[in-house]
Amino acid sequence: MHIEIITIGDEILNGKTLNTNFTYIANLLKKNGYIVNQGLTISDGKKEIETHIKESFERSNLIIVTGGLGPTIDDNTKKYVSQLFDIELEINEDVLKFLKEKFKNLSSIEDQSTYPKSSILLKNEIGSAFGFIIEKNNKSIMFLPGVPEELTNMFEKHAMEYIKKTFVLEKKFFQKKMNIILKEEVEINDFLKPLSTKDIILGIYPNHEIVNITISTYAKNESEANLKIDPIKKIIEEKFKSYTFENSSMEAEIHKLFLDGNKTLSFAESCSGGALSCKITAVAGSSKYFLGSFITYSNELKKNILKVKASTLNEFGAVSLQTVKEMLFGCIDLTNSSYSIAISGVAGPAGGTKDKPVGTVCIAIGDKKDFFLKEFHFQGNRNVIVKRAVSTALGILIRKIKFNKYYEL
Amino acid sequence: MHIEIITIGDEILNGKTLNTNFTYIANLLKKNGYIVNQGLTISDGKKEIETHIKESFERSNLIIVTGGLGPTIDDNTKKYVSQLFDIELEINEDVLKFLKEKFKNLSSIEDQSTYPKSSILLKNEIGSAFGFIIEKNNKSIMFLPGVPEELTNMFEKHAMEYIKKTFVLEKKFFQKKMNIILKEEVEINDFLKPLSTKDIILGIYPNHEIVNITISTYAKNESEANLKIDPIKKIIEEKFKSYTFENSSMEAEIHKLFLDGNKTLSFAESCSGGALSCKITAVAGSSKYFLGSFITYSNELKKNILKVKASTLNEFGAVSLQTVKEMLFGCIDLTNSSYSIAISGVAGPAGGTKDKPVGTVCIAIGDKKDFFLKEFHFQGNRNVIVKRAVSTALGILIRKIKFNKYYEL
Repeated sequence: MHIEIITIGDEILNGKTLNTNFTYIANLLKKNGYIVNQGLTISDGKKEIETHIKESFERSNLIIVTGGLGPTIDDNTKKYVSQLFDIELEINEDVLKFLKEKFKNLSSIEDQSTYPKSSILLKNEIGSAFGFIIEKNNKSIMFLPGVPEELTNMFEKHAMEYIKKTFVLEKKFFQKKMNIILKEEVEINDFLKPLSTKDIILGIYPNHEIVNITISTYAKNESEANLKIDPIKKIIEEKFKSYTFENSSMEAEIHKLFLDGNKTLSFAESCSGGALSCKITAVAGSSKYFLGSFITYSNELKKNILKVKASTLNEFGAVSLQTVKEMLFGCIDLTNSSYSIAISGVAGPAGGTKDKPVGTVCIAIGDKKDFFLKEFHFQGNRNVIVKRAVSTALGILIRKIKFNKYYEL
Repeated sequence: MHIEIITIGDEILNGKTLNTNFTYIANLLKKNGYIVNQGLTISDGKKEIETHIKESFERSNLIIVTGGLGPTIDDNTKKYVSQLFDIELEINEDVLKFLKEKFKNLSSIEDQSTYPKSSILLKNEIGSAFGFIIEKNNKSIMFLPGVPEELTNMFEKHAMEYIKKTFVLEKKFFQKKMNIILKEEVEINDFLKPLSTKDIILGIYPNHEIVNITISTYAKNESEANLKIDPIKKIIEEKFKSYTFENSSMEAEIHKLFLDGNKTLSFAESCSGGALSCKITAVAGSSKYFLGSFITYSNELKKNILKVKASTLNEFGAVSLQTVKEMLFGCIDLTNSSYSIAISGVAGPAGGTKDKPVGTVCIAIGDKKDFFLKEFHFQGNRNVIVKRAVSTALGILIRKIKFNKYYEL
């Protein structure tokens, strides 16, 4: 089974937009056992589209083409493809009726109802551009709209079903994931290196103080896959014991831990500027345990809201263990939550001093009786420093709740 | 000038990671007048790497290959490439010395100091994997490490200079950008369609309540480009007058407006969960005008901190014009800032009711004397609803400050 994804769009090629569609499709295919062999991004010119679809068609069983189906001025895919495969375009009356009911007077409604004759249509539940599939020589070329919300909805609800039905795999791709927090990549890598075999693919992806590990294999079914993957997974777990968690992300792990433990959470943020809250509230249902966050960017708010003493700020500065401790206590007083986190640091690029250079971040975690307090020094630009601070804080919180251990160096 | 980017990495192909490196490189090239013609993502197998670099070398003047240079188990690019071009690998003594001083006992230090003979090295100021360039037949192949922080630093500081010096363009790509807020894509598209010419490329990119417009052309120099672009830009500006801004993002525009106007800003967030603050604090120097945000996810905090009346919450609910108005006033009382924004809504997927379905978001903006209050209904998933709410609120704030106009439907 050979799968290629072709992304059409000058906005990707000229660096305006990230290719999130590719990642979404590849990830959902992987979850269903399919691996994408190649990805190609090209401009929406006639020659490019024709040449590359033709070449890809020689190599592939399934081609997924994204982009170029909308009503805007730079969308031409449908026209070029009908010429390339010599299939007439015709108005699909069902689509025409559906679009007329949904969008009333949209000027491009006839264009948007026109598809290559006898292609299989994929319903667009959000926008006006339906997807379509051309089948030829036991191969399939699938065309999807480029707007991410439309594409993801269409792919999940209609396209994936088609692929599973049409391309039944003898051996599927299976993967298990683990995360290791607060450990160096080098240490993890040195340990994992000898565990890799012909049949087991190990992936190591450092991601701002977390290292994501993937253990993958091809197998006929899940139980065969488990037989291969689980022994390796156990070895890694035993080595890194209280530094591991299995959920796909820290926020998902925290979600589980707080729901299971019936605990509540609140934050006092300064340099992280809402990034900590954002991560937690991105998870649906987080309102069950997350009470809120005080983003006290100014010293005035640190004093007025969190009751950080003026003398503390004067003597030790806003980025200090003393200040984050008072921020933590203030946050607990205001929310009465089971756990709180306070973060204050110098995210840069300005604001660094000799004593507290850019990257200095003080973190306090816990409750009034049992709390963790530490000054960290993170590398990277403003955005990376904030990410590292957030990951470190959440990693320490996970360890505390799961293993009743704070972070030791 | 034909440029291709080849991304090596299973983590991109299997949908684990977004290809941010591609977007970064393509964007910086564009700013220097170069347009990427094609992007290819392949796995790190020997055959794939060899075949595709060879094919790409036939078509291109410059190939940029990212990934596969690090010390981890799945990095092999360097080895395959030296075989492909029949160039010996040798230890570079300068790199060896540099890495020994920087990383002391790193186990892979000899591996990381080994490069194809007489290739041009690109210094890695963050990690251990240097980049390198192989020149052959007046063509260049550049190899960069896959870790985004290392790649961006290396590309900006060393690689871009090499490209500008080596490939001098007769005609460069020039682009101007505009943003239109709070207008429908269809209306914008219908107006822009007739403005497109052979020489002027118009791009329209809807992006959660903002529509980004690009006006591009190829020209010998900037003044020639301006002669072509500016008349078109003026026509668009005149049509959409008080709905346009020029900065690359809303947060950049707000940064400018607040610094210029010597104003201060604060937020009271509920469903946006810190996303509003995050956007603003991502801009370096935002602490000069951004005071902070109260993320009152729980009703208790809405009452205790923002002084929303219990009777208001009981009678109208947390998602209501009455509640956001009191959140706004509470926020102003606590911060005394020039402008505040309050947001409360149902981001979903749960929590919707018949009266207030998922996507209902109430927004209040302004100060106590002059404020805007409106209930919106956004489409999309949790993440998209939050993005739309944030963009809408910031768009309205920009219009208010720039044109002294709130949003009219």
